[in-house]
Amino acid sequence: MKIGIYGYGNLARGVENAITKNPDMELAAVFTRRDPSSLKLATAGVPAVAAAEIDAWQEKLDVLILCGGSATDLPTMTPALAAKFHVIDSYDNHSSIPTHYANVDAAAKAGGKVALISCGWDPGMFSLNRLYANAVLPQGSDYTFWGRGVSQGHSDAIRRIEGVLDARQYTIPVAEAMDRVRAGENPTLTTREKHRRECWVVAQEGADLEAIREKIVTMPAYFADYDTTVNFISMEELQRDHAGLPHGGSVIRTGTTGLNDQNTQVIEYKLTLDSNPEFTGSVLVAYARAVARMAQRGESGCKTVFDVAPIDLMAANRAEVIAHML
Amino acid sequence: MKIGIYGYGNLARGVENAITKNPDMELAAVFTRRDPSSLKLATAGVPAVAAAEIDAWQEKLDVLILCGGSATDLPTMTPALAAKFHVIDSYDNHSSIPTHYANVDAAAKAGGKVALISCGWDPGMFSLNRLYANAVLPQGSDYTFWGRGVSQGHSDAIRRIEGVLDARQYTIPVAEAMDRVRAGENPTLTTREKHRRECWVVAQEGADLEAIREKIVTMPAYFADYDTTVNFISMEELQRDHAGLPHGGSVIRTGTTGLNDQNTQVIEYKLTLDSNPEFTGSVLVAYARAVARMAQRGESGCKTVFDVAPIDLMAANRAEVIAHML
Repeated sequence: MKIGIYGYGNLARGVENAITKNPDMELAAVFTRRDPSSLKLATAGVPAVAAAEIDAWQEKLDVLILCGGSATDLPTMTPALAAKFHVIDSYDNHSSIPTHYANVDAAAKAGGKVALISCGWDPGMFSLNRLYANAVLPQGSDYTFWGRGVSQGHSDAIRRIEGVLDARQYTIPVAEAMDRVRAGENPTLTTREKHRRECWVVAQEGADLEAIREKIVTMPAYFADYDTTVNFISMEELQRDHAGLPHGGSVIRTGTTGLNDQNTQVIEYKLTLDSNPEFTGSVLVAYARAVARMAQRGESGCKTVFDVAPIDLMAANRAEVIAHML
Repeated sequence: MKIGIYGYGNLARGVENAITKNPDMELAAVFTRRDPSSLKLATAGVPAVAAAEIDAWQEKLDVLILCGGSATDLPTMTPALAAKFHVIDSYDNHSSIPTHYANVDAAAKAGGKVALISCGWDPGMFSLNRLYANAVLPQGSDYTFWGRGVSQGHSDAIRRIEGVLDARQYTIPVAEAMDRVRAGENPTLTTREKHRRECWVVAQEGADLEAIREKIVTMPAYFADYDTTVNFISMEELQRDHAGLPHGGSVIRTGTTGLNDQNTQVIEYKLTLDSNPEFTGSVLVAYARAVARMAQRGESGCKTVFDVAPIDLMAANRAEVIAHML
């Protein structure tokens, strides 16, 4: 199975690494809008190709994995490329998924291609677990907790404050809230009760630290609705102790069954990830296999993780999987 | 969607309750090999029908949910009924699944029916999570822990000891082992290190308690390989404190990613169930919907949870599910 990667940032490097763990796959090329000679690929012998030349690769790729950002890249990138390639993206702007779906579906159908959108862990594995838990327990409540993990958006928001050189923000689920949910208490939780925010900030020499702290904790949408702690550290400490991109979280559904709804049933799916981009890349690669299989069967149009029969994710043959995993 | 239930024990009552939580479904009849007039159904107005009369129901049922036992009922029951009905069972003898699959597949294909086997939580939801985690993290280790929960097989084994009136056995995962797995230590664990067994036993008056205890803890296969505690209690205490059928457990996969496999990624799926049969019944009912959809599309033969696209489990339409759950 020949895979192409479009874009080459953190996520793409995660995809590139995941491909090496799947012997039935091979990285064929990486496409970039930058100067291809500036890319240092981890995989030996794979060409970096200018994005403008991608049309020449239509017969050489089974699936193209799109590693652009959701804010500005994917809304146009995915439909444009879905007209010519079987593609998969990690579009994660939940509220705009129906619009993205419609645009991608039209392009993919016109081109006779399969395009799977919004794959990764949220949306992606978390979405799948929300669906399974709702299907099994139609009467119940859903909870999603994120972290402990680095939020790039919140880290960037801190970096934009005057006097800040660099910053790392961790989203942390409130343990007490998770315990109440897991105990089946079915609590109504405010934003503040579910997550807290921890900031590690490198300030310019002589900057007013108290003013920076105040700007962070009162920032609307990002921090004002949370209990936020701000720690000032040196650039050396930031680089030494906060270089990773860990993340994770839990999707929990608590439901009731029984004649008098007397029995509580709790389903929890939990991820604890040392590397968010490498895990997201691993999910994309598994679903790229399913995209290739759907394409082989002559399917076309926009797909989601909800449409993929689990067996299509596995390299091993079906009888073997049934014998060893069921 | 008209559902039939075949057999009427604990699992069937769980199925019956789950049907009431799914407004697109209706219980049409319960089939029994006992005297139908002896059945007290929880659902008003539903007929209890002699199993021998089931052929008359071929046009009146969309899916028949088989609630027999795996040891002696399902190996013959599922193939026999799959020739005439779209069926689903909870066959849970893992090592014999390929044989059961082959028998059911031949019967279902001959009859042009869909038959989904080995559905529930293990096999079932646990199997699904083993597959998803292996697909996403091809390089890693799998762990399954069961409990805290009542094992019927182990409880029955104790009941067969002379001098025992009744008993309840709980399988309990060893917390320290789970912590090591969750921490990504990737430990090799013996049977004894993974689970312990807790027994609550009602003995006949004057029975030799020490002899009973010794027979339990040394019983091969069931208890000898575990740390087992035995507690003697009165029948009143057993009925008051141990009447429920709780169960659950965790499927955990730890994998590594990164250029030097330096990053550990942990996926855990955890169930905490007040009622094992009601949860298993809830899973069967969700998959009965998928069986009906596969049948409507003209599919036939033996299926498993691995073959079902998640969207087929949902009553809501696809666009709605994508908009709200992805």
